[in-house]
Amino acid sequence: MARLNSRNKTPILLSDGCVFFGGVVAAVFVVWGFWSFIAPFPAKNANFQSVTSKLKSLKGPDGALSCASSTRGPDLRHDAPEKTFYDDPEMGYSLDNPMKNWDDKRKEWLSLHPSFIQGLQERILIVTGSQPFPCQNPIGDHLLLRFFKNKVDYCRVHGYNIFYNNVLLHPKMETYWSKYPMIKAAMLAHPEAEWIWWVDSDAMFTDMDFKLPLRRYKDHNLMIQGWPTLIQEEKSSMGLNAGVFLIRNCQWSLDFMDVWTSMGPQSPDYKKWGEIQRNTFKDKNYPESDDQAGLAYLIGEEKEKWGNKIYLETEYAFSGYWENLVGTFENISEKYNEVEREETRLRRRHAEMVSESYGAARVAKLKDASWKRPFITHFTGCQPCNGNHDERYSGDACWDGMKKALNFADNQVLRNYGFVHPDLLDNSVSPTPFDYPA
Amino acid sequence: MARLNSRNKTPILLSDGCVFFGGVVAAVFVVWGFWSFIAPFPAKNANFQSVTSKLKSLKGPDGALSCASSTRGPDLRHDAPEKTFYDDPEMGYSLDNPMKNWDDKRKEWLSLHPSFIQGLQERILIVTGSQPFPCQNPIGDHLLLRFFKNKVDYCRVHGYNIFYNNVLLHPKMETYWSKYPMIKAAMLAHPEAEWIWWVDSDAMFTDMDFKLPLRRYKDHNLMIQGWPTLIQEEKSSMGLNAGVFLIRNCQWSLDFMDVWTSMGPQSPDYKKWGEIQRNTFKDKNYPESDDQAGLAYLIGEEKEKWGNKIYLETEYAFSGYWENLVGTFENISEKYNEVEREETRLRRRHAEMVSESYGAARVAKLKDASWKRPFITHFTGCQPCNGNHDERYSGDACWDGMKKALNFADNQVLRNYGFVHPDLLDNSVSPTPFDYPA
Repeated sequence: MARLNSRNKTPILLSDGCVFFGGVVAAVFVVWGFWSFIAPFPAKNANFQSVTSKLKSLKGPDGALSCASSTRGPDLRHDAPEKTFYDDPEMGYSLDNPMKNWDDKRKEWLSLHPSFIQGLQERILIVTGSQPFPCQNPIGDHLLLRFFKNKVDYCRVHGYNIFYNNVLLHPKMETYWSKYPMIKAAMLAHPEAEWIWWVDSDAMFTDMDFKLPLRRYKDHNLMIQGWPTLIQEEKSSMGLNAGVFLIRNCQWSLDFMDVWTSMGPQSPDYKKWGEIQRNTFKDKNYPESDDQAGLAYLIGEEKEKWGNKIYLETEYAFSGYWENLVGTFENISEKYNEVEREETRLRRRHAEMVSESYGAARVAKLKDASWKRPFITHFTGCQPCNGNHDERYSGDACWDGMKKALNFADNQVLRNYGFVHPDLLDNSVSPTPFDYPA
Repeated sequence: MARLNSRNKTPILLSDGCVFFGGVVAAVFVVWGFWSFIAPFPAKNANFQSVTSKLKSLKGPDGALSCASSTRGPDLRHDAPEKTFYDDPEMGYSLDNPMKNWDDKRKEWLSLHPSFIQGLQERILIVTGSQPFPCQNPIGDHLLLRFFKNKVDYCRVHGYNIFYNNVLLHPKMETYWSKYPMIKAAMLAHPEAEWIWWVDSDAMFTDMDFKLPLRRYKDHNLMIQGWPTLIQEEKSSMGLNAGVFLIRNCQWSLDFMDVWTSMGPQSPDYKKWGEIQRNTFKDKNYPESDDQAGLAYLIGEEKEKWGNKIYLETEYAFSGYWENLVGTFENISEKYNEVEREETRLRRRHAEMVSESYGAARVAKLKDASWKRPFITHFTGCQPCNGNHDERYSGDACWDGMKKALNFADNQVLRNYGFVHPDLLDNSVSPTPFDYPA
């Protein structure tokens, strides 16, 4: 998949899309670390030469990387003086500015900022956001605030960064289309992030323990919850959920988003795509082209072109549908308590920053249980901000479902601070006894 | 200040409060690192022994710490099996549970989690929060959402963690008193954080570049904006601002908060303290004891007991008063642009995660300017959530001031994503040209 051609003018080739990028960079650094002592780097490129000498200076007399430099975690305090894509006057962050050779540019940036290489493959930036003005629904912004708090809680425990945006980066790309300009800008502003994880403002983490099985997606560039049969055979645009997805920070993704957003409201083909989507998907009942049907179209109709880099996840609730879930939260809480009463190591108190090991043990213990916490609960059909909702349920069912889910998630966080909501529909809390769950 | 007594049963003593804690732990580790090869640790304490052998196992044949372990930044994935204060059934997180010997307990936890020692002295957890239910002011929650986004932006750039709480941890401690149970719980849940930084929900970062000069506070445990003359001579409870402060995670702070909160609504002396505060401070015009007047009292009247560990900061806007500031933001933006047009290295584009170096250069360049961005702007007198405000200005002055400040701050963030609000009172944005500011 990735070839390392050491004798060529272009020493690093990524021949097969951009997957395994982090691995390649890491491998390159191991090779460079070795090379810098046995042979000089080809002198074609001044930047690469200076990187090689920088790497040399990081090494001790035994050739091992010095602890004092690149292995202390990302160095936020230093930018390399060498020119990168940021110094190119043609480079722009907006969707209208084409970006070419992003993989090489990103790789060069990383080589100049080696402190970001350790942990690269697992580095995720969560991107989310909402409209620039207050919600029409009187409870809307309060819910959005709590949804955001929930995401920040998840990020703190797992060491992820998060960017909340509430401006419209492209004036014509509103509502569900607004995320793509944000994602592109985030990719270019964050070359250190291997993945951008879009999470809608009305989706929340309801299992704070669960971590994405990234290894499963190592050959893919886009991961989303979806069912191929529903999309391809039953021609349903509801066969996936475009409100939560993981997209690799690479050229393939930029190219794919160019194609995907060519169905959007800023495109001259917007109307045409609305018709195509409506003709393709039986369950699409409005004329405007939307991003979810657009993605379903590309997966269903252009599978050979894009499909092999798109992973449709069904094994866990990557964006679980709230209506099936919120009624189960009390029972699930009780089941988890039962398990922890048996397995006391799971209820050992600990610092919040080391909760990952307990979370992993809990996830492993409950691997085959049928009543696991859903990883992410998505309130599809409820729109907390404008207050609209599917006719099949009431607004109160939506907002109460959200409050319950928020307290269900908050209980997993507050426990590390010694408190719990005994009732998921009540915001009040009680201190937890030492032997909790008792 | 800190004595290292190697032959004692208690090998590490912090004799003078708890300042310099991180430095002491780091020093201890250097000494231990050396000791572990020349002499066995006194066998009195099984925990300390196992720490010593753990340190041994981290070392290479030359005695240097191995890169593969403790120097890669905090290890979120591992909790030490040895017992710590978390395993003590008597330990609780609430204000009612007394905590003793916190410095030793925290130090022991750190010795068992050595990956958190690197960077300890600069490690800050920002704590903030708001009420559990929607705001009465229709625009209130929208503003709180944006205030929170602003804090998360600041944390991302500087590598800090943040915890937003919206439950009342003590049912009687509402409004301004509600922060103390949160701060105590955060201290115990985050032994890896040297500082807890309380920032009110209606305060925001308006200089994303500025970093706290922590070295200045190395001998202090509480840092807050305040003027000793106003407090002590003019007897004003407005001589400080209890809405933003930095408090060291140590026993002194827990003891101090016990005394401070003994003036709160959960205390039998609440009414008495209201009277004392009102008799002490000329400008206090309501009967309830409040935390700000309480702190002013402790600083003014019990100076010899607490004062030498409290730093009153006046050199920069640690919590600048909005009314004097928001009118200057357009001018300040223009001044900054002028400086950057002259000093082109300051306007070089870069990855968001390496913006600290540009921020530091900008702060250094503008050291003596009279029109600097205020670090934090606090909307004292405006209450975005309940909609109340000081009679001297209108609600619109408050909410428009907030919007302007939020966009002023957001411009500093969005720039790294290629966008800018050309008008601070308008939420729309434009892409920035390469040579920005042009």
